[in-house]
Amino acid sequence: MQGNGWGKIFRLTSFGESHGAGIGGVIEGCPPGLEIDLDFVQAELARRKPGQSRITTPRKEDDAIEFLSGIHQGRSLGTPIGFLIRNQDQKSKDYDHIKDVYRPSHADFTYDQKYGLRDHRGGGRSSARETAARVAAGAIAKLALARLGVKVWAYVSQVGTLALDKPYAELDPALVESNIVRCPEPETAERMIRLIEQARAKGDTLGGIITGVATGVPAGLGEPVFDKLHADLGKAMLSINAVKGFEYGSGFAGSSLFGSEHNDAFVMGPDGRVGTATNHSGGIQGGISNGQDIYFRVAFKPIATLMRKQESLGPDGLPTTILPKGRHDPCVLPRAVPIVEAMAAMTLLDHYLMNLARF
Amino acid sequence: MQGNGWGKIFRLTSFGESHGAGIGGVIEGCPPGLEIDLDFVQAELARRKPGQSRITTPRKEDDAIEFLSGIHQGRSLGTPIGFLIRNQDQKSKDYDHIKDVYRPSHADFTYDQKYGLRDHRGGGRSSARETAARVAAGAIAKLALARLGVKVWAYVSQVGTLALDKPYAELDPALVESNIVRCPEPETAERMIRLIEQARAKGDTLGGIITGVATGVPAGLGEPVFDKLHADLGKAMLSINAVKGFEYGSGFAGSSLFGSEHNDAFVMGPDGRVGTATNHSGGIQGGISNGQDIYFRVAFKPIATLMRKQESLGPDGLPTTILPKGRHDPCVLPRAVPIVEAMAAMTLLDHYLMNLARF
Amino acid sequence: MQGNGWGKIFRLTSFGESHGAGIGGVIEGCPPGLEIDLDFVQAELARRKPGQSRITTPRKEDDAIEFLSGIHQGRSLGTPIGFLIRNQDQKSKDYDHIKDVYRPSHADFTYDQKYGLRDHRGGGRSSARETAARVAAGAIAKLALARLGVKVWAYVSQVGTLALDKPYAELDPALVESNIVRCPEPETAERMIRLIEQARAKGDTLGGIITGVATGVPAGLGEPVFDKLHADLGKAMLSINAVKGFEYGSGFAGSSLFGSEHNDAFVMGPDGRVGTATNHSGGIQGGISNGQDIYFRVAFKPIATLMRKQESLGPDGLPTTILPKGRHDPCVLPRAVPIVEAMAAMTLLDHYLMNLARF
Amino acid sequence: MQGNGWGKIFRLTSFGESHGAGIGGVIEGCPPGLEIDLDFVQAELARRKPGQSRITTPRKEDDAIEFLSGIHQGRSLGTPIGFLIRNQDQKSKDYDHIKDVYRPSHADFTYDQKYGLRDHRGGGRSSARETAARVAAGAIAKLALARLGVKVWAYVSQVGTLALDKPYAELDPALVESNIVRCPEPETAERMIRLIEQARAKGDTLGGIITGVATGVPAGLGEPVFDKLHADLGKAMLSINAVKGFEYGSGFAGSSLFGSEHNDAFVMGPDGRVGTATNHSGGIQGGISNGQDIYFRVAFKPIATLMRKQESLGPDGLPTTILPKGRHDPCVLPRAVPIVEAMAAMTLLDHYLMNLARF
Repeated sequence: MQGNGWGKIFRLTSFGESHGAGIGGVIEGCPPGLEIDLDFVQAELARRKPGQSRITTPRKEDDAIEFLSGIHQGRSLGTPIGFLIRNQDQKSKDYDHIKDVYRPSHADFTYDQKYGLRDHRGGGRSSARETAARVAAGAIAKLALARLGVKVWAYVSQVGTLALDKPYAELDPALVESNIVRCPEPETAERMIRLIEQARAKGDTLGGIITGVATGVPAGLGEPVFDKLHADLGKAMLSINAVKGFEYGSGFAGSSLFGSEHNDAFVMGPDGRVGTATNHSGGIQGGISNGQDIYFRVAFKPIATLMRKQESLGPDGLPTTILPKGRHDPCVLPRAVPIVEAMAAMTLLDHYLMNLARF
Repeated sequence: MQGNGWGKIFRLTSFGESHGAGIGGVIEGCPPGLEIDLDFVQAELARRKPGQSRITTPRKEDDAIEFLSGIHQGRSLGTPIGFLIRNQDQKSKDYDHIKDVYRPSHADFTYDQKYGLRDHRGGGRSSARETAARVAAGAIAKLALARLGVKVWAYVSQVGTLALDKPYAELDPALVESNIVRCPEPETAERMIRLIEQARAKGDTLGGIITGVATGVPAGLGEPVFDKLHADLGKAMLSINAVKGFEYGSGFAGSSLFGSEHNDAFVMGPDGRVGTATNHSGGIQGGISNGQDIYFRVAFKPIATLMRKQESLGPDGLPTTILPKGRHDPCVLPRAVPIVEAMAAMTLLDHYLMNLARF
Repeated sequence: MQGNGWGKIFRLTSFGESHGAGIGGVIEGCPPGLEIDLDFVQAELARRKPGQSRITTPRKEDDAIEFLSGIHQGRSLGTPIGFLIRNQDQKSKDYDHIKDVYRPSHADFTYDQKYGLRDHRGGGRSSARETAARVAAGAIAKLALARLGVKVWAYVSQVGTLALDKPYAELDPALVESNIVRCPEPETAERMIRLIEQARAKGDTLGGIITGVATGVPAGLGEPVFDKLHADLGKAMLSINAVKGFEYGSGFAGSSLFGSEHNDAFVMGPDGRVGTATNHSGGIQGGISNGQDIYFRVAFKPIATLMRKQESLGPDGLPTTILPKGRHDPCVLPRAVPIVEAMAAMTLLDHYLMNLARF
Repeated sequence: MQGNGWGKIFRLTSFGESHGAGIGGVIEGCPPGLEIDLDFVQAELARRKPGQSRITTPRKEDDAIEFLSGIHQGRSLGTPIGFLIRNQDQKSKDYDHIKDVYRPSHADFTYDQKYGLRDHRGGGRSSARETAARVAAGAIAKLALARLGVKVWAYVSQVGTLALDKPYAELDPALVESNIVRCPEPETAERMIRLIEQARAKGDTLGGIITGVATGVPAGLGEPVFDKLHADLGKAMLSINAVKGFEYGSGFAGSSLFGSEHNDAFVMGPDGRVGTATNHSGGIQGGISNGQDIYFRVAFKPIATLMRKQESLGPDGLPTTILPKGRHDPCVLPRAVPIVEAMAAMTLLDHYLMNLARF
């Protein structure tokens, strides 16, 4: 109800501040009897964790997950899965300097306006550290989707103004993890890494775009009219820290086409199933999956925390100066890839389960 | 639950097929004692209705609304507001030819896949006629927001490749209704109208972009972490027929900026309230409104129904040909402006009410 | 969210005041392709309607239902089913005398306290007329349950102090409709009818108890821990006007037994399925159905509207006198039987559908 | 959605099996800035914990709670409050004997039917140990209600056939904790204790009734028509393990009264506020609180686990014998008092907050 949950059937309710005891959540609706590969879950968390490479924050968090319930002898019980990821490498003192100042383009001011108080250390609840819970639940969702033949993957397709201009279908998912920026085109990846290193050297930050893909999604998922599949995918992505935009299929570019160019003609596939000749629809028509690949793009703004001096105001309304001391990412994109995948996986599994609730 | 409702406190549950008895809904959570200006509600519906100008479908629907409950002596009772808009100008025979064919990029195929049957006439539940219920509920939401000093407006900012390249702040909301395409820049509006007429002459269709704006929104609205204000606005827009993308504030373009360019410095406003020097944030930080203007852009694909011959498949999987006989819009944008406003108004009011649920 | 809906998957959202345009609702989650027997729905409404016998209010309402959507060629589409039952026999003037007085044990005072205004005519939203929407939706639920082999029935088991002391299993469901009080034991029924007539002659009213039964419910329905099947059945019943208590299985009496008396031993049934020797559990163990009959009892208070003079207060806090002029039931029980059945049917179907949402 | 949550605004989502890592939950919607008295929370848990007296199970659990988020410097942040109560005194081996047998009137059979597998140790998710999470969240709710002047209390009013026949208004809440059975009438309490000891000596168990009371509840809480205040209170109570019935105000007994006896006349109170001369309504009219005391009764069945031999069936359908070895309560009532209070407190606070969501 109040913003801490995602999904209706497969549902994550999350909790946690960046400098409290930990981050965690409760997963409801996981199908019973599912083998829970704990190593896989931990590996997914490792893809998101800080300190994983030279282009992420040097802050170290193992992000070791402890499952508290809902799993017995390696299999899900159908009961809620509670889990906890304790915070470790907290240098709360690093944040004393922002106790009395609103960091530009951060949530300090708005949390104060909404709640009347806030945990200023590391951004508290507004910290992207919260997304660890999403990745954990998303890993469980991926395990369930694997049994259904659904695969979700994502990659960095743009950093700053440097864009990879190949469509997803020409890329090899296996290459995403071949480099630290998570772009499946090695040469572009190298250039992106250099760009990020340059920005960091200047104490500046970069935004970019992540492309997400889901294959093997059966036709029929999505609930008209308000819970269209792409509407839920869009909300899922927009709920991730720093996201400013979402488009699927032909997206914004598609609005410049004529209908005669944009329409996807139905064709009979070699497998005897109805398919489409093109896929401007992005695998979704009328809010319901049509069995084709689903693909979408997510725009991230540059991170607000600069490693340079900025002017701002304090809660008292008086001007002040900030010079961040914490350890921060110059570009959130590489670590956001598993988050995008996790939100997509949870959303697709939730819609799959919802679609079963008929006879 | 199953996709027919929008909002948590202020909530619309809608029903209706394009060729059934009518379209309608139930509005819950309308604050009690609100004066319901029925003429205003009807006027909003008139902005969406077909046949309103020479660039919309010639289909005629009065879209006369009947309120069935929840209003007594001109004021809301706090109880659910039921309403009904009867369908009138139905030429169901016009749709006999699509009973046995899947129209490209329509929802015919996916509805069949999901439900096993469908009302083929006029698209049934997948018809944009469903949005009349949204506009009705949105009009009530606007009346409530007016009491709070919140104003929502939208306009067509692009048709096909023809874009209005002025920011919203330089435009006059009063001019939106000065022309039939709903672009507040008269000269561009004229060019858009001509473009639409040319497309129609060729039996083709056009997409475009609508920009939405909300002013007077108090700081503090939005529920972290999954129900961020912009995430709900995004889902609201993506749930509208034909929408392919959503961005707010700096949006996709913002992902190319450096953080040092993108950050909005806090400044003390002349009214003694904290404001920002720029507004790349689009009035939302950390998912919570900061008191600045909220603005966003919504991408619409070109309408799928062409007035020309198309090849397709039928439910039997065999090739067939379609030549539409119905009456259709060449460009949905002008009629979608009140829909965008309605969804934004409902979303903002809902978040306003949710934010009251604390002490 | 705000109290006008029932169910999660199969969900009714209702609207309507007793003296407004009508009563109606939206049914979501009805399985697609279900044959909708309109005569059956209307017949169920006839069991609830006023004026059906000499022991109910003489007010006349046909309660003719109009379906507005979601049904095509006699079958459900899977899309929301909107419906409307127009109010007809409104003598709103009959209620002018209660505009400025709070009727004892009615909702006049509490609605004023909550909303600041109310539609005083006939009780407005607090009128039991609202339950017509429940019966309509319950009829649809019964049609769906019939396909699953689940049968729901109820009967009047007590009026005032006159109780039928046979267990449900010794009664014949076919006899419920054999008399106007809906007690399947003809002799007791006669005595109940006389009791009601005597109370009416004195301008007084009677309460009583309705017993509900569900047979054929498969094992496995119910969602631990908060949405136990009996917890939802209990809320369903307690939400009906005038209900003061709910018990299932052994109920209140069971709390006086020893565990050694109360436990239901598991036995192998003749059909090779696990059953129980006794059924103190009322067909539900740990909140989940066990395949045995579900049975429960619902306590109704005597109706608050007396046809005699009562002292009360007005909104101004000053003493005043009421002498009702409307047309009222001396005992709500006979008309409440289909309401109890409807709420039980909706609840069971909803849980059945929820239980499908796993793999 | 799937039964692990309670409340809409103030919402607990719980997790945990009796023999897993622990029991815990996430509390959403706690008003920000509330002082969280951790000692009070722990004291409430102590009222529920096993091993607290000679008439409860000798099993020892400290039920030490760890708060994981949502509290900073002793005050609630408005963000979700995660908490964990680790399981300690687990003798899982004690349950090996029930791995392959369905205990009569337990949830073993139904969990197997629903999920296809279960954690048999200690009942897993169906164990009443789950209610520790309710008591923790209820304690937070009580702290919030205290700021509003609302007080919730409960007591054991019947054990087996031994009933305390004084109305709540003649009892002293301060005496509830004066004895180990939690009956505020010392003499009756002694007799109840003896009764429980006798039952235990025979390896048998007892049920009973708990009466709950809420004072200081403002008029206006409750959401017509499905979420009537007493309907939610009823579901809250029915969701507690072993509960078989719920009644409020005059309850089942009220159904035997005439309307002329049952109606509560409105009177002007000495404080200038509208009150009622009697309170058969139990403080709720039309589903909305009227400012009078709310009171209700909850029926508990005798606990199913007997310390004597019972016949039953195994998952293989073959007859078998059980002789429990675990440590169990002979009567759940004394430990259930804080659970009843917790569920009532959460429900009232939730409705209070929901009622704020209007203007």
